[in-house]
Order: sequence, then C-alpha cells, then structure tokens
Amino acid sequence: MEKRTSTGADCAIAEALAVLGDAWTLRIVHEAFFGATRFTDLQQALGISRNVLSGRLTHLVEHGILDRVDAGRTGQRFEYRLTDKGEALLPTLTALRDWADEWIIGAGNEPLIITDRKTRRRIPKLRVRDGSGRILTRADLQARPGPGAE
Amino acid sequence: MEKRTSTGADCAIAEALAVLGDAWTLRIVHEAFFGATRFTDLQQALGISRNVLSGRLTHLVEHGILDRVDAGRTGQRFEYRLTDKGEALLPTLTALRDWADEWIIGAGNEPLIITDRKTRRRIPKLRVRDGSGRILTRADLQARPGPGAE
Repeated sequence: MEKRTSTGADCAIAEALAVLGDAWTLRIVHEAFFGATRFTDLQQALGISRNVLSGRLTHLVEHGILDRVDAGRTGQRFEYRLTDKGEALLPTLTALRDWADEWIIGAGNEPLIITDRKTRRRIPKLRVRDGSGRILTRADLQARPGPGAE
Repeated sequence: MEKRTSTGADCAIAEALAVLGDAWTLRIVHEAFFGATRFTDLQQALGISRNVLSGRLTHLVEHGILDRVDAGRTGQRFEYRLTDKGEALLPTLTALRDWADEWIIGAGNEPLIITDRKTRRRIPKLRVRDGSGRILTRADLQARPGPGAE
C-alpha cells in the first residue's frame, strides 16, 4: 500500500470498530450466527454477566445488528435475531476465525470446523483477491481517497 | 448453520478477540497496513494519547503482530513493523472495511478506496465461498467440532 495514513477517524474501519470494537459484542454476534437467540443461551455460551450481556444486546439492537423479537406463543419470550446487517458480518467473522486458527491455535488443532451444509466440505480460507482470483497481499494494494473523503 | 453454540471460550473467535478485541488495537494494525511505522505517525493518525498508544503497541509486540525495530542510522529510532502474523490480518481488515462501507457509511460515500496497485482496479468485496466459488450465507454453513475441541 502507499505510505499514507488512513485519514484517521474518517476511515470505515474506525466506524466499524465504533460499533464492534469490543470483544463481547463480536462474540455475541458470533453466537447468534450459531443459532443462539435467547438471553439465557447467550449467557451460558459466553459465561458473561447478565448485566454486561444486557448492555451489549441493547447496543447491538440499537445499531441494527440484532432484532429483538417477541417469539412467545403463551406470554412473552424475547429472541435476538441477526438482521441483514448482522448477517453481513459473516466474512468478518470468517476472516477472524481463519486468522486465529492459523496464527494462535495452529492448524490441526482447530476447535471448530465450518463446512458447507451440502457438500460437507470445509470452506476455503478467505483471501483478498483481484478480479481474476489472484491472491493479493499488502504490497499489491494501495489506498486512495474515496468519494466520502473530506 | 446448525443450531448449537460455539463451545464458548474454546472457540477461535474468542482467542482472536482476546488479542484484538479492542478498537485501538485493530486501528493501530490498520494504520500499520497503510505504512505508519513510527510512534508519532501513529499518534497523529489516530488521535490517541501517548500512554494508551504505548500500552497497545507493547501488547501488539508481545502477541507477535508488530516487531519493534531500531531503524536509526544515527542514534536510536524505533519503528513498528507488521510481522507475518500481522500481515495475515489483511482479510479481517478488508472484511471489516467492506462491512462498514456497505452498512454504516453507505455505497458511494466510502472515505477510502483500496485498489490493486497494478491494475488500479478496486478489489472485490470479500465473500465466503465454497470450493467452486459460489457465495455462501449463514444458511449454507454448519459447524462441527474440530480436532482441537475438548
């Protein structure tokens, strides 16, 4: 990439991290991807206090990543469901898992394998590619101000 | 995905977020991708206090994401450079930028455009795909315990 800074606070990464830059927040989204929808399920899966979980869920609902839905047939029973904006975090979570599997946990020791439901094959690691499929590294890339730059 | 939890703390996402689950940490890595290597450049780009930046840099060096290198020709001048483990965060940063561009900032208003240095073309958005290139969504995926599961 060109040697320049990313224009700091104007950058999309900064915006994303203002919403997600917290370990619990992204872990809640991750559990939601695996089908956890109820407060107690999330609490159990994450080992998080009710207080902290409640705050993070409110934050995620306010930012349109989860919907809070009354799914009760007899009486109220709230579920938290991923919105389209939440489902769109799949590449982020996948890239993060790929990285941790390779660089922290180590290949051959992965705690969780994600497969295609139909083919049962493991999904390939995410790579940044050009339009023709060639894998790109940092040296191949450069940044230029977009239409939203100040 | 199958309705199950991700086995909580054993999960790779949890491991990754134990290292990266902090807005400043990932923003420092992001600036490093754009070529910022010096303490003062990072401080200026991020508008972060010396104290906080110093702590986060130590954390990133300890976790092998940045190397602290004496690049001084006359006297000491330290630079922070991405290691291979740090460079491997490119898909994560790219996925995060894609998401923020689409869902927070909005298409056509991106503050920063990343292009291929050679072709000058914008790099395609990261998508989770199967081996044959078909884009997968959450409904296509399932999780099963890997070799490292307890």
